[in-house]
Amino acid sequence: MAIVSAAEQFHVSAVSPSYWRVTFDNGPVNLLDPDTVDQLAELIDTIENEPELTVVVFRSDKPGYFMAHWDFRSDNNRVAGMRPGPTGLHPYLDNFVRLSRLPAATISQIRGRTRGAGSEFVLATDIRFASERAILGQFEVGVDAVPGGGPMARLGRLVGRGRALEILLGGDDIPAELAAAYGYVNRIVPDAEIEDFTDRFARRIAAFDKVAVAGIKKLVDVATLPPDDELAAGLRAYFATAGRPQRRPFVELLFSNGLQRPDGIEADLGTAIGELRQKGAVTA
Amino acid sequence: MAIVSAAEQFHVSAVSPSYWRVTFDNGPVNLLDPDTVDQLAELIDTIENEPELTVVVFRSDKPGYFMAHWDFRSDNNRVAGMRPGPTGLHPYLDNFVRLSRLPAATISQIRGRTRGAGSEFVLATDIRFASERAILGQFEVGVDAVPGGGPMARLGRLVGRGRALEILLGGDDIPAELAAAYGYVNRIVPDAEIEDFTDRFARRIAAFDKVAVAGIKKLVDVATLPPDDELAAGLRAYFATAGRPQRRPFVELLFSNGLQRPDGIEADLGTAIGELRQKGAVTA
Amino acid sequence: MAIVSAAEQFHVSAVSPSYWRVTFDNGPVNLLDPDTVDQLAELIDTIENEPELTVVVFRSDKPGYFMAHWDFRSDNNRVAGMRPGPTGLHPYLDNFVRLSRLPAATISQIRGRTRGAGSEFVLATDIRFASERAILGQFEVGVDAVPGGGPMARLGRLVGRGRALEILLGGDDIPAELAAAYGYVNRIVPDAEIEDFTDRFARRIAAFDKVAVAGIKKLVDVATLPPDDELAAGLRAYFATAGRPQRRPFVELLFSNGLQRPDGIEADLGTAIGELRQKGAVTA
Repeated sequence: MAIVSAAEQFHVSAVSPSYWRVTFDNGPVNLLDPDTVDQLAELIDTIENEPELTVVVFRSDKPGYFMAHWDFRSDNNRVAGMRPGPTGLHPYLDNFVRLSRLPAATISQIRGRTRGAGSEFVLATDIRFASERAILGQFEVGVDAVPGGGPMARLGRLVGRGRALEILLGGDDIPAELAAAYGYVNRIVPDAEIEDFTDRFARRIAAFDKVAVAGIKKLVDVATLPPDDELAAGLRAYFATAGRPQRRPFVELLFSNGLQRPDGIEADLGTAIGELRQKGAVTA
Repeated sequence: MAIVSAAEQFHVSAVSPSYWRVTFDNGPVNLLDPDTVDQLAELIDTIENEPELTVVVFRSDKPGYFMAHWDFRSDNNRVAGMRPGPTGLHPYLDNFVRLSRLPAATISQIRGRTRGAGSEFVLATDIRFASERAILGQFEVGVDAVPGGGPMARLGRLVGRGRALEILLGGDDIPAELAAAYGYVNRIVPDAEIEDFTDRFARRIAAFDKVAVAGIKKLVDVATLPPDDELAAGLRAYFATAGRPQRRPFVELLFSNGLQRPDGIEADLGTAIGELRQKGAVTA
Repeated sequence: MAIVSAAEQFHVSAVSPSYWRVTFDNGPVNLLDPDTVDQLAELIDTIENEPELTVVVFRSDKPGYFMAHWDFRSDNNRVAGMRPGPTGLHPYLDNFVRLSRLPAATISQIRGRTRGAGSEFVLATDIRFASERAILGQFEVGVDAVPGGGPMARLGRLVGRGRALEILLGGDDIPAELAAAYGYVNRIVPDAEIEDFTDRFARRIAAFDKVAVAGIKKLVDVATLPPDDELAAGLRAYFATAGRPQRRPFVELLFSNGLQRPDGIEADLGTAIGELRQKGAVTA
């Protein structure tokens, strides 16, 4: 495999001109941060302009983590000051919208935790294969925020109103088996087999005609993608809620419990947030 | 727990200012009737105006029944003469529309039968947890009626066209396991554990920020709720079909088989209606 | 049972005025071809005008096959020259649109393979019961085509974006169990029981009031059917892609492997196409 790019966070290996594997790598738990936003925008630009590229697999080599979530220590001013992407949306959303509309199939191979922004990322890809070690979730409600990357719009359409509300209002960890039962992921593949399974599936698509793949996606997009302004309303709700000073003490409590470290509260973050909130020691 | 209100049919217990439990109680099988409509409207008014209320659990203590269905002995003139609710819709629908749009999470904990209007009620709540004893269904087709409280609109979006049509055109009983496989309920929780499970889930949400909960719901609403006029068309179809004199003899046959009594045909009402119709003794 | 019609491909048996069983029969693997289009249009005309007909079951007696797929040896000029049906759409689509909107319930009883056009047919019926011997799929991507009969629009709404894209971009065989888990079919019924099961279900509906059945369908249609122009765009994409000369050599390779014969590549057609494409012997 040729290494096409060795950007800091997205390691791209071209298995062939029609099939790329992208390994995400950002710290011990794979946080998403402002650099992720910039680098993902570049990666999407590149994918959009690869004439033969038909399928892209996103994966992680980080034990236990696909993409933990957004980095709570990020520079908010930098994020607020980012210029809109090609869709006219803030680049955090612009990335996800363009990711969904790529003229190539995108597959998330999920063998660990992917919550918050990580869940929003996998929801923006086309297909989600998960091993029994995957844990998904949108815990934002537990830190006083409306999620910003579109899960109300996407989960509402993907898993139906009842299960979307359970996931989003409960904010709890969703283990792989429940995620598959709910349709949050396509299906579970045993962890020992998922690399081969995903690779075989990707090689099928890589052998197909890109015009057919892109043509099919375009019509599924019409049937299933939320309108951009619905997503934009979600990001506005995120900035309005996540920016409130009231939540800072609770986030500091999470850091004192090991937030963003592989051996701390991250293991069962969704569940733990609900328990800490009920103790009420710190008002979020 | 403080008893907030002891209205005839909806017994409200405030576990805390952010968490209420509402127990429905109307006769031996928990029928819905014109009084239910009036009292539910009042309850929804109250919930809308409780500034801290973040989660409401609906439940039943009636063995075998959550909400059986609409009372066939109701005063139809009273129902026809009811004044529109705040949405401009007939209060039967207005209740369900406002229930779905409450700025608090609503959970139906279903341990028994909930059919017809009872199914419409749980579909208007956000989240449905069912025990293995739950039985759902929309048997209206079996008594010559189009269901009036929105299940075409809601089930069509929740479980997909194929399963919605099976439920609505077959009119059969849908046991808990099938309901969970179809997404009619979120999931099954063992009957011995469901009170604790629902309570733990509700306590999580009760500890969260109401602004975040309400903000999330508002955006899931955009993605998943049917437009009001689609629901209004359903209620018009109900009045047009259920009001036909042709169905009266069959309803009387059902009463002679124990309709609206806990020990009669109610046990397997959906299935039984289909069997009686095929005997053809009485034209509905 | 009275034989209402013995058209070449659709054998109609009237179990009663309200219940018809239609057995599809076209060659050893039940291909769909231009004659199928003409005869299905006639059948739908007939069903539309039967005042008492309330439920129609579609089935096959062909071992291993419900409807294999579109006949690759069809006269394309004849297809291109077909006059629009009553909806203004090409009759291939017009049939499926009118099938979905019939004022009677339609059920596909699937005990064998139904791929491509066969999958599009069952997706246009209301309810899909499958035995463990059923295999579904949309392999068109593997022969360089966008499927033309609406599966992007229908599967996108039925099983959600992720699973629809897996089915449509992977082009692989979807065995019954996975199809049921994804909601592609309503549920699995053991092969030894499915004739009885479907018959019992159909007899229930046949005993119900047609006004109620048609009224329910009309409102589920509003909630779940794609707009006609979305389907029309799909058929245009099919003609634009399937008409390219580039795919002819690969189709000939499939014929040399037994395409359209019961003992050849048809057994695992979806899987086999992916494997042959990867061998790359012949560019599709």
